[in-house]
Amino acid sequence: MQSTTHPHDHLADWLAGDLARVNALIRARMASEHAPRIPEVTAHLVEAGGKRIRPMLTLAAARLCGYEGENHIRLAATVEFIHTATLLHDDVVDESTKRRGRPTANLLWDNKSSVLVGDYLFARAFQLMVATENLRVLDILSNAAAVIAEGEVLQLTAAQNLATDETIYLQVIRGKTAALFSAATESGGVIAGAPEEVIRALFAYGEALGIGFQIVDDFLDYGGAGDAIGKNLGDDFRERKLTLPVIRALAQADAGERVFWERVIARGTQEAGDLEQAIDILNRRGTLASTRETALDWARTAREALTVLPDHPLRDMLADLADYVVARVN
Amino acid sequence: MQSTTHPHDHLADWLAGDLARVNALIRARMASEHAPRIPEVTAHLVEAGGKRIRPMLTLAAARLCGYEGENHIRLAATVEFIHTATLLHDDVVDESTKRRGRPTANLLWDNKSSVLVGDYLFARAFQLMVATENLRVLDILSNAAAVIAEGEVLQLTAAQNLATDETIYLQVIRGKTAALFSAATESGGVIAGAPEEVIRALFAYGEALGIGFQIVDDFLDYGGAGDAIGKNLGDDFRERKLTLPVIRALAQADAGERVFWERVIARGTQEAGDLEQAIDILNRRGTLASTRETALDWARTAREALTVLPDHPLRDMLADLADYVVARVN
Repeated sequence: MQSTTHPHDHLADWLAGDLARVNALIRARMASEHAPRIPEVTAHLVEAGGKRIRPMLTLAAARLCGYEGENHIRLAATVEFIHTATLLHDDVVDESTKRRGRPTANLLWDNKSSVLVGDYLFARAFQLMVATENLRVLDILSNAAAVIAEGEVLQLTAAQNLATDETIYLQVIRGKTAALFSAATESGGVIAGAPEEVIRALFAYGEALGIGFQIVDDFLDYGGAGDAIGKNLGDDFRERKLTLPVIRALAQADAGERVFWERVIARGTQEAGDLEQAIDILNRRGTLASTRETALDWARTAREALTVLPDHPLRDMLADLADYVVARVN
Repeated sequence: MQSTTHPHDHLADWLAGDLARVNALIRARMASEHAPRIPEVTAHLVEAGGKRIRPMLTLAAARLCGYEGENHIRLAATVEFIHTATLLHDDVVDESTKRRGRPTANLLWDNKSSVLVGDYLFARAFQLMVATENLRVLDILSNAAAVIAEGEVLQLTAAQNLATDETIYLQVIRGKTAALFSAATESGGVIAGAPEEVIRALFAYGEALGIGFQIVDDFLDYGGAGDAIGKNLGDDFRERKLTLPVIRALAQADAGERVFWERVIARGTQEAGDLEQAIDILNRRGTLASTRETALDWARTAREALTVLPDHPLRDMLADLADYVVARVN
């Protein structure tokens, strides 16, 4: 499928000039005259790793609405800072979590540094968005920050709880992933002064893309059929998160499967071979396949939302991006 | 001294109507439909404990400038949320910290909950300040958030480092304490549309009050001469923080004292009796007394800043508050 080969790179090429300015702004704002530990902690997150998907969404949304100002650069840096702060705060672990075998890469810095440097990036994000002087954008992004934190707390309380259903799951992933995707696209449209119909479509695209993206992530944690390069198979299982494949398998579980899920997820006494048995059950119950279908549905929803937008090469790239994100499950 | 008996209560009485509305707003915004853990974690911080000094500063600043609108309530709740979020994030500990005997009250909730609920409160704070639709206030408070986080990171890297001098110490406490005090008073004046001279005076008062407040706190950690009810003597010592009494004692240390400080602060191998020995050295070097003098100087600076403000009962209460904060060291 030609259209789904690396649409991320097409976007990065098209937006190269803007992206270079976003990167320069990120570097400048990440620095701290007084606290050199800050760039030390953030460097490996902000400089190297990221694919910059969220800032590209903001840039693409603004540009395809004809925006020619400066504020889309600030907003793109804002969403990347919020994302990076969230990653840092996700790194904070409790002793019990560590014992369950968290990958050591996440433990590069101590808890306290992760928390405080994350706070610094949040604050930098708010400074950047305030500099746009656009109250509607401030409203969108401060609301997104609250929804993100709420989703993360909800995930914490939903983990290990077999009563977690698809409604709660959707709330969690709207919060932890989709809220920032939709705020990224919506704020790009708002800053460009796009018509309300276009702004709504950009929001809908970002939200559906984010939900699809997270469902694919949760699918890949149990392997899927394709390659899983870079994925740490079974992380969610070890952290006893109730993700879509497990929630659906639980709804169909027979007595023996129920006993299994209660032991490994609710009580958390996991043994060698449990992950393999979990994947067996998910395959037997067809919930990896149905999770894949659900992700494809969300990619379709994202694509359809774009029909309202003006005809533009960036619109086609965003459509391809939706396919690409979900193509990871093939 | 009559004027220093509980000026905090006088302020609370005068501002009772406003404070009741701030408390109602805090309760409403702390709630979370989807994540009941949030109010569980924050209840003991937001409901019971706090003296509400920071929100009272905002309310007093706005009221003594004649403000009659609604936004001072939002701003007062904002600064209290930022303060509470900071407390939650301060609770995050690393295993090494725990081993050094952190009080268990701070470990009521796990690290992850402290981080994520703190993030939620930060986000709620930003929503509240955005609702004022006052860009200058947004600028002040988002800058304060960055300075606070930077101060906390700086404190982290300055701890255990005997090269920390008074300049770095002042930077740390400006960040961790004074930045929110000064943002509280300054934003109260800005929202009231006060003249620039008055806004500058409110900022100067809040900053000096915050610096004095923190110096007193650091003094009391080594006991002082008075009662230390509610203080956990020696916390800073155990956490190997370089506070003003120690920094000044280090500057005068003879060879034997230097060996002592290197062992207990730089290397962190502390034994029974070390805290008592540290207090002995501080008394011998006169640095508890000189720290007390420095705190009194800052209280005077705070008081003097108020002379520019309009004649108003709240102005007198703020002046008394400055004396009261420092009177804790007597």
